[in-house]
Amino acid sequence: MCAPLVMEAVARTLSRRAFLGAGLGLLAGRALAQAEVRGKAFSKAVDLTHELSPEIPLFPGAEPMRITTLVTVRQNGYYGNRLDLWEHSGTHMDAPAHFAEGGLTAEKLPVESLIAPLAVIHIHERAAKDPDAQVNVDDILAYERQHGRLAKGAFVAMHSGWEARWRDPKAFLNQDASGTLHFPGFSPEAAEFLVREREIVGVGVDTLSLDHGPSKDFKAHVILLGAGKYGLENLANLAQVPPAGALLFVGGPKHRGASGGPVRAVAVW
Amino acid sequence: MCAPLVMEAVARTLSRRAFLGAGLGLLAGRALAQAEVRGKAFSKAVDLTHELSPEIPLFPGAEPMRITTLVTVRQNGYYGNRLDLWEHSGTHMDAPAHFAEGGLTAEKLPVESLIAPLAVIHIHERAAKDPDAQVNVDDILAYERQHGRLAKGAFVAMHSGWEARWRDPKAFLNQDASGTLHFPGFSPEAAEFLVREREIVGVGVDTLSLDHGPSKDFKAHVILLGAGKYGLENLANLAQVPPAGALLFVGGPKHRGASGGPVRAVAVW
Repeated sequence: MCAPLVMEAVARTLSRRAFLGAGLGLLAGRALAQAEVRGKAFSKAVDLTHELSPEIPLFPGAEPMRITTLVTVRQNGYYGNRLDLWEHSGTHMDAPAHFAEGGLTAEKLPVESLIAPLAVIHIHERAAKDPDAQVNVDDILAYERQHGRLAKGAFVAMHSGWEARWRDPKAFLNQDASGTLHFPGFSPEAAEFLVREREIVGVGVDTLSLDHGPSKDFKAHVILLGAGKYGLENLANLAQVPPAGALLFVGGPKHRGASGGPVRAVAVW
Repeated sequence: MCAPLVMEAVARTLSRRAFLGAGLGLLAGRALAQAEVRGKAFSKAVDLTHELSPEIPLFPGAEPMRITTLVTVRQNGYYGNRLDLWEHSGTHMDAPAHFAEGGLTAEKLPVESLIAPLAVIHIHERAAKDPDAQVNVDDILAYERQHGRLAKGAFVAMHSGWEARWRDPKAFLNQDASGTLHFPGFSPEAAEFLVREREIVGVGVDTLSLDHGPSKDFKAHVILLGAGKYGLENLANLAQVPPAGALLFVGGPKHRGASGGPVRAVAVW
């Protein structure tokens, strides 16, 4: 029971300096009950969001977004555009309802689930050799041996290094002659493990899909979204984030009936 | 120089409990150099975002958003929509470029500016009697007498109580017979004060516009955006947030050349 006293003492000491963030511990803290938490102070913010434009990689068959300038400062005194886009464009969320009938749509997710301890699992070395690489249960267990058990309420992101291909849609999709896509993702077994054995809020990838490219049944999607978790796809800058110890903010979509939609995702630590 | 040592001591004490958020102090701390900061721990998250739909209030002349369902789980195995919307719909950002030629577009704002100490100035009592009420310099000074000087890097929000009208677009716009709108906003003098005398990152309102309804020259917009600040309009739930001590996270738009766009805004404290 000494923690609150210490918190108070620090509050007094730091008073007019730097204490606003300290309490996030309580919010994230519940989620972090079993996590290995660093005592290190946060000093960085990294944007995990790619710029959204008509030129970005999209799943085959999806129409690119359109940005139509309606007014300009020079002609109208103010500048503004109309946007027309498929929900699953750019760095975006898959809400449970994207694959699960009756599942939550994005605007209905509890706001607390949009603030989560961020676990980044690196498989970039394997993915450099095998574009169809997957995050497997073994990768999760290896991560936990190094960084502690995944926190209750954690968000688990795959860093495969694929994000480096973002500006080259052909390389990002990596289709073979038969039209099959090749890029990394989560294996169905890993999805099942996260859903059954851990209490995560969601899963993210730096590729086009939670499932790896060759998947035809989108089983990781079905398992994760079917269990009420959300997904984030096309995440950026995961290489700049520590594997453990960062906090993720997901500026998720709030339109009615959202199967998902572009997000602004930021990591702080 | 004792603060870091104290932080370390707390980190050791709380270690596996609740400390992840503590360091946000450093990030927000720079911004909080002159703020009165509470020593109270964060335990709440409140969504400051209204649901976005074709039925929401819009500035006269703006076309409602369209949500077109393209695929459903039943028919296609997955559910998704296409969205078509004016950037300044719902709870949204005005980027500097919205009113300032050459100003920053939303996707180019420094990510650090999207995480800010939140100051909520309440004028709902005055606004209940006068729909054209404005946040004036006196309101800001009165706020500071009670809660301390506005922090460097703070975000200043007006709570006028107008958000209660959100579900009734006619009452939210409050047009008179001549077509003039009537709702609260920031006065140009208050905007000037915030820009010249304080180092804020942005300003928000629970109404349709940073300027109050009758404004024809949008002077508060011009002053604030012209100085590189961003605005948030149609904020929700500000009555549930403490006047001082919360941290704002703005999930701002990331599309290319954004004059603004829908945001997900969340307050934690």
